[in-house]
Amino acid sequence: MTPSTPSSPSTPTTPSSSRTSSTARRAVLRGAAAASALAAVAATQTGTAHAAQPRRRDLDIGILLYDGYSLLDPTGPAEVLSRLPDAAVTMVAERRGPVRTDTGDVAVMADRSLAEVDRLDVLLVPGAGNRGTTAAMKNERILEWIGRMHRHTRWTTSVCTGSLILAAAGLLDGRRATTYWASAEYLESTFDVTYVPERYVRSGKIVTAAGVSAGVDMSLHLASLIAGERIAQAIQLAVEYDPQPPFDSGNAAEASPELKALALRLLEESSHG
Amino acid sequence: MTPSTPSSPSTPTTPSSSRTSSTARRAVLRGAAAASALAAVAATQTGTAHAAQPRRRDLDIGILLYDGYSLLDPTGPAEVLSRLPDAAVTMVAERRGPVRTDTGDVAVMADRSLAEVDRLDVLLVPGAGNRGTTAAMKNERILEWIGRMHRHTRWTTSVCTGSLILAAAGLLDGRRATTYWASAEYLESTFDVTYVPERYVRSGKIVTAAGVSAGVDMSLHLASLIAGERIAQAIQLAVEYDPQPPFDSGNAAEASPELKALALRLLEESSHG
Repeated sequence: MTPSTPSSPSTPTTPSSSRTSSTARRAVLRGAAAASALAAVAATQTGTAHAAQPRRRDLDIGILLYDGYSLLDPTGPAEVLSRLPDAAVTMVAERRGPVRTDTGDVAVMADRSLAEVDRLDVLLVPGAGNRGTTAAMKNERILEWIGRMHRHTRWTTSVCTGSLILAAAGLLDGRRATTYWASAEYLESTFDVTYVPERYVRSGKIVTAAGVSAGVDMSLHLASLIAGERIAQAIQLAVEYDPQPPFDSGNAAEASPELKALALRLLEESSHG
Repeated sequence: MTPSTPSSPSTPTTPSSSRTSSTARRAVLRGAAAASALAAVAATQTGTAHAAQPRRRDLDIGILLYDGYSLLDPTGPAEVLSRLPDAAVTMVAERRGPVRTDTGDVAVMADRSLAEVDRLDVLLVPGAGNRGTTAAMKNERILEWIGRMHRHTRWTTSVCTGSLILAAAGLLDGRRATTYWASAEYLESTFDVTYVPERYVRSGKIVTAAGVSAGVDMSLHLASLIAGERIAQAIQLAVEYDPQPPFDSGNAAEASPELKALALRLLEESSHG
């Protein structure tokens, strides 16, 4: 939906035409393999002779934003999925414009309103804190739109408490799904859903991810379902996803009650009323 | 900088006053430890009796946005660092308003202009593709501002090719640093910097991270330097960072030349103009 023209790596794309700076003469991304890779891209572009045309977009990926979402939930998957060949990622909300996170600190632009999006190949619903999740679960315009998109998606996905919103839209009835660790009890007791404590869970064309950062793992898995393992492996390298968490504290099943309480307190205190 | 009022978890904060819905009566985040955690928060708020006042912000964290940054570079660390007690994360750019990523698909709002930010406790400079990195490295307003902020920061940090921008601002002279795998050669050959192929590298008060997703690891480490290991461990649990990448392909040192070439081609083809 956002037209984009491929740029030739040998052509400076910055407004400045100066070639006196060393940075203007050399690509900053290269390394041993980069020269041949970039040469291959240039050859492809010359061969197909459409360098000035908008890139084709065969895969429309829509990410729902709503007031109070958690920032990494939509942006981690957007980073990954935007690298798929011929894919376009669009942020969608009730109205166009900036949509603020749970902390109130950051806003991502919604470039399309719900009314402007009729059909998506991939839908992703992010999670939020209590306030944002609860409001979205009661928002009939959002639930109706999710249900309508889902009828034609190839993949309907969620991150964190986004699965509660899919459930509120009626999409998870009788299914297995995951969610944020602190929402698992709520998911199972409120809906006809079997909670599965895995990083991501596929049920038919629905893929749910665990909390916040799990969206990165889920979206790489999704990339492999869409474009094959080789492309997904290359995307993982492109975002240098070789995680080395400084602590071994991210798994709620192994965390002490005290650490869980502290985690939830930090979330609550950082949330914007 | 963004005023925020803590919300009591027992008070519905959604516009609807309906209590007929089961979702209105119960917090969606709880689990075994959540009830006591939330009770503790409520008690703290009652005790200090300032629930309606803006939260104190003792730690000003500024993240630079510039045209063509990679989305996860600023947003991963923002998710983590915004959970630090009494911290405020602000997106800063040359001008206020939406700033687009390298793919052109997504824009994050800059809530402050460079001219509006005089001092920061923590500065983070994200990375970008060739076009965005090269332009930022030549942008004297950005380089001057980075240098000025750095004089008073507690921590000056970067993700991915953001270290090239720190280097262009003269901050890395004689130091050890890391960067995106495909920029390592460029960093060492262009600046007086020793490249260290680690996930994040600390040199005095400067902390550089490797590519894109490494910002999450770096910012958790930074959280421990700022607030102690216990808080950082709790933040890691709060964002459920127990990574399970679907492939073992994120480390460039172990990747084949072909996979590196494919990764760089996907980056180039997904990049806007």
